[in-house]
Amino acid sequence: MNKNRHLKKPIKRKAVILLSGGLDSSTVLYWAKEQGYKCYCLIFDYNQRHKKELVSAKKLASISGCPYKVVKIKLPWDKSSLIDKNKKIPVKLPANKKGKLPTTYIPGRNTIFISFAISYAESIGASAVFIGANAIDYSGYPDCRPKYYNALNRVLRNLGTGLRIRAPLLKLKKSGIIRLGTRLKTPYALTWSCYMGEKTPCGKCDSCKFREKGFREAGIKDPSLKKQ
Amino acid sequence: MNKNRHLKKPIKRKAVILLSGGLDSSTVLYWAKEQGYKCYCLIFDYNQRHKKELVSAKKLASISGCPYKVVKIKLPWDKSSLIDKNKKIPVKLPANKKGKLPTTYIPGRNTIFISFAISYAESIGASAVFIGANAIDYSGYPDCRPKYYNALNRVLRNLGTGLRIRAPLLKLKKSGIIRLGTRLKTPYALTWSCYMGEKTPCGKCDSCKFREKGFREAGIKDPSLKKQ
Repeated sequence: MNKNRHLKKPIKRKAVILLSGGLDSSTVLYWAKEQGYKCYCLIFDYNQRHKKELVSAKKLASISGCPYKVVKIKLPWDKSSLIDKNKKIPVKLPANKKGKLPTTYIPGRNTIFISFAISYAESIGASAVFIGANAIDYSGYPDCRPKYYNALNRVLRNLGTGLRIRAPLLKLKKSGIIRLGTRLKTPYALTWSCYMGEKTPCGKCDSCKFREKGFREAGIKDPSLKKQ
Repeated sequence: MNKNRHLKKPIKRKAVILLSGGLDSSTVLYWAKEQGYKCYCLIFDYNQRHKKELVSAKKLASISGCPYKVVKIKLPWDKSSLIDKNKKIPVKLPANKKGKLPTTYIPGRNTIFISFAISYAESIGASAVFIGANAIDYSGYPDCRPKYYNALNRVLRNLGTGLRIRAPLLKLKKSGIIRLGTRLKTPYALTWSCYMGEKTPCGKCDSCKFREKGFREAGIKDPSLKKQ
C-alpha cells in the first residue's frame, strides 16, 4: 500500500454547469463546487434581446475560477419575446395564470441547452450536468418540471454514458435558493435576472418580481441593487 | 351532415424531418409524405468537413416540394473526424468492431439535432419528428438504438406537447431501406453518403460501404453512380 496515498490529490469529478448569468444557475455553480465537482460552465448566446446576462455569466465563470465555453445558437422559427425586441415582455405576475405560457417561453429551449451540455459532458468525461431549473417560483415553462428531468435521465441511462442531469433547486422556493446561495458566497452582485436590457433592472417583469420576492422573503438585501 | 364533406381537403398533420442529405433521411422524408404528413425539413450545418451532404439535403427538400430550415451549430469541444479535416476517416468496416466508437462519432449529435427538431415542431404545431436512424447497418453510435428513442418519447410525453419521435428505419437492413425508398420514388441520385468531400464517393468509408452493400443486396443499381 502506498504510504503517501493520503498526500495524493484526489481526482475531482467533472460537471458541466448550464450558466445563464442569473440567480439560479450561479447558485447551482457554487453548490456544485461545494460538492467537490470540477466545474465547466456552458453559456448560450441564443440571440437574446440583450447581452447583459451573457456578460454576467462570463464574469461569474471567471470569478469562480471555472473554465467556460460559449455556444451560439439561432432558432429561425423562434418568436419568443425574449428574442424578438418588437414583442412586449409580460409584466403581470404570474404571467402563466390563465394556463397559457407567457410570450417569454422559447419552445424546447432547455432541451436544446441540455443536449449541448450532454455533448460537452461526454467529450470531457463529466459525470453530471447541472441546471438551475426551478418549478416553484417560475413562469410555468414545461421544461422546468421534475417529471421532465426524470425522463431525461432515463434517456441518459439508455445512452450508457454514466452521465446524470441534476437540478438541485427544482423544489426550492426562490427565498430558499437565495439563502443557500448566500451561505455558499455566490456573488449575487454580479448576477442579472431582468428580461429587459436596460441599465438597471426594470422591476416589472416576471424575472425581476421573482427575484425581489425571493430576497424579501429571505430577509436578505439584494447586493446587485447596491450599484444603483 | 354536410353533403360536400368528401370534397373538403383534410387538414394534413405536420411533421419535422431531420434531413441530412443521405440515403436514410431522404427515404424517411418520402415515407412521411406517403403517410400523408405535411413535411418541414430541418437541415444542420454543423461545420461538417464538406458541404456535399448539405447541398444534397437542400436539393432533396426542394424537389420533394417541402419547405426547409437550416440551423447552424458549432460544438467548440468536438474532435470528431467528421468535422476535423486533420483526422483520418476510418476505412475498415465495421469501424466499431472492437467495442470502440469510430472517430466519426460526435458526442450527443442526434440528441442535439432532435432537441432543435422538438423546438421547431412545437413552434409550427407538428405532431411528429422523423429521423432516419438505423440500428442494423450502422456504425454503432449509441444514439441510433431503439431504447434511446423510447426514452426520448417518454421525455416528450412529460413535456405534454403531443409530439412523438418516429424512427421508421430503425430495424431495417440497408437493403430493406433502399427497396422501400425505391418503391417510394426517393430520388437517390441526389443523395450523398460519403464521409469524404471529394468529387465522387470514396467507396472506402463506413458510409460508402454500407451504401454499396445495401444496393448490392437489394439488387438495385445505385442511381447516384450513373453520374460518374
